[in-house]
Amino acid sequence: MPKFTPFDLQMMTRAIKLAQKGRFTTAPNPNVGCVITQGESIVGEGFHYRAGEPHAEVHALRMAGESSRGATAYVTLEPCSHYGRTPPCAEGLINAGVSKVICAMQDPNPQVSGRGIQMLRDAGIEVEVGLLKSDAKALNPAFIKRMQTGMPFVQLKMAASIDGQTALANGKSQWITSKQARQNVQNYRAQAGAILSTSQTVIDDNASLTVRWNELPESVKEHYPEAELRQPARVILDRQSKLHPQLALYASHSPVLRVSNENAEVTVEVNQSGQLDLRQTFATLAKTHNINHIWVEAGATLAKSLLEEQLVDELVLYLAPKIMGSDGRGLFGAFGLTDMQQVLELDIKDCRLVGSDVRLVAVPMPIESKRKD
Amino acid sequence: MPKFTPFDLQMMTRAIKLAQKGRFTTAPNPNVGCVITQGESIVGEGFHYRAGEPHAEVHALRMAGESSRGATAYVTLEPCSHYGRTPPCAEGLINAGVSKVICAMQDPNPQVSGRGIQMLRDAGIEVEVGLLKSDAKALNPAFIKRMQTGMPFVQLKMAASIDGQTALANGKSQWITSKQARQNVQNYRAQAGAILSTSQTVIDDNASLTVRWNELPESVKEHYPEAELRQPARVILDRQSKLHPQLALYASHSPVLRVSNENAEVTVEVNQSGQLDLRQTFATLAKTHNINHIWVEAGATLAKSLLEEQLVDELVLYLAPKIMGSDGRGLFGAFGLTDMQQVLELDIKDCRLVGSDVRLVAVPMPIESKRKD
Repeated sequence: MPKFTPFDLQMMTRAIKLAQKGRFTTAPNPNVGCVITQGESIVGEGFHYRAGEPHAEVHALRMAGESSRGATAYVTLEPCSHYGRTPPCAEGLINAGVSKVICAMQDPNPQVSGRGIQMLRDAGIEVEVGLLKSDAKALNPAFIKRMQTGMPFVQLKMAASIDGQTALANGKSQWITSKQARQNVQNYRAQAGAILSTSQTVIDDNASLTVRWNELPESVKEHYPEAELRQPARVILDRQSKLHPQLALYASHSPVLRVSNENAEVTVEVNQSGQLDLRQTFATLAKTHNINHIWVEAGATLAKSLLEEQLVDELVLYLAPKIMGSDGRGLFGAFGLTDMQQVLELDIKDCRLVGSDVRLVAVPMPIESKRKD
Repeated sequence: MPKFTPFDLQMMTRAIKLAQKGRFTTAPNPNVGCVITQGESIVGEGFHYRAGEPHAEVHALRMAGESSRGATAYVTLEPCSHYGRTPPCAEGLINAGVSKVICAMQDPNPQVSGRGIQMLRDAGIEVEVGLLKSDAKALNPAFIKRMQTGMPFVQLKMAASIDGQTALANGKSQWITSKQARQNVQNYRAQAGAILSTSQTVIDDNASLTVRWNELPESVKEHYPEAELRQPARVILDRQSKLHPQLALYASHSPVLRVSNENAEVTVEVNQSGQLDLRQTFATLAKTHNINHIWVEAGATLAKSLLEEQLVDELVLYLAPKIMGSDGRGLFGAFGLTDMQQVLELDIKDCRLVGSDVRLVAVPMPIESKRKD
């Protein structure tokens, strides 16, 4: 275990903060930050802003210029070793004459993990790995999941009254949640690679499923000008070909990926119950469309299927301070359970007020491990 | 507005902390704390522990002894002016030769409010009122409400899954919430003047509705020995005379107050729908039984009635990280609403994790003011 100094810790913390500035724009690339120091002075720093643009190390090395000779570089992720849209960052660090590199974590892609570090070591650079690793992982849960499993990270958004109703019996629901909660949803949408819904929901709400820059929090807008706005892809499950060009969905320019079993941008099989294969949908979105992170906004039926197929990484549930009565529309529909052992369990990671609503972030527990308990 | 010094603030903060130590035992009396100082030294302090035992001022004056001559007394509530089970505290302070009294708030009972202060002033003692008033009020919300309105402070406890189900369709529900949440309930029960439920719930669960000392938090047990445990009264709505002596309810010694329209400890009218009059029940409990604070544990039907009649001061809702499906038993039953304007709104005062569950504390908004919005 390498020994890190308090100064090392301070510099990596700074690199992680820098990396976070790319959170709305880097998709499908990871968020990465880099700080370059000479002695106890920062001589360069930078972060990755947008796919196709320079990596964090390139920005930091440009800023450091000649001062990078003999310097220490702090990088939140192992420098890349491959020629992509930009030359490998490991080579850039070598050419700049850096003498030490501290990375928070290795590349999560098993195909290249460790190669960048090896390249640096082969060039005589001292490399240490693991400083603030868990914070660095938290920068890119979706990117890491896709690299390691081939599947995207899926967040399921739901909203209900505190008694679990998403609408009255007659379908009326506007508005259950507060303006602040709806703005909070925009903030989540803006960080996703894709927003997924069903043609039914899109038609019922005539939803555009775009990020509305105006509704982002002020603290975000300050550093994220409207002209730079990245729109996630809209992925719509549309087995019955209900989508039509007059929908608000098609009024905005960001891509719409229709999912169906034929003649669609994403073609998947239909399962025994006549439903589009959700697991295959996600795998295809990850593999063919490089989508790391999917934000799902849909109704009870899709939500229930996603939970039952264990495809949800996080449930983001907004609960409005309202009581609607049990005769409204329930969050996840009927489950037909007869024993408490069958109940789906979750682990609540976060619970806070957003405006006047409560927001819970909960991780569904694997059904396998639950049965063992 | 009197000027208070930082030292005054520190002493009253101390008096409020002392007052809190009585929170399990003083009912139906208020929590009160007192600190007596000479210059910048504390010479006496105390708090009210149990109805019938000495008031806070008496303990503090005993401790101060001769040092109370010319001293300043900080009291969280106006000293009493009447001869009850103990002589009036205002007289005690006068006889002890105290030269200044600072009270956080006046007595909330409109019949005696200001009399204690007048008694002190008539004896030549300097009196100031209002230091940390809102903290002092927070010590005794239930006592204050009863004194000012004649009605008790009512907390309604409910527990459900995050999708609003209290049980599966077949009635199975053990256990929805975690052990920590159930301990948290014990902590609430222990502070109430009465625990209210229905004979149906008592019979279904064979519930004893007592405080189980073992289940109180360790931090409470440390300062609250089992021998001192105060058991709240159990108030059971039993219109159909279902209660019988074999129930666990009757195995413990604390009083059971049956509520019915005849032959009961609490006799109230039956309303047009054949239900016991809940408002009259509460008013009687406050007036005849000196109950300030009622903790309600019951099912959907009573919960709904209490909310509709606007008798709930706080909803304490435990939400377990479980999804049970909308075909279980809903929190408050059917409401038959057809418009979002009809939905009952609340104000969430607190939201936190208790063990693995979420606990919300929410105040129902007046239905009148809601209609005006």
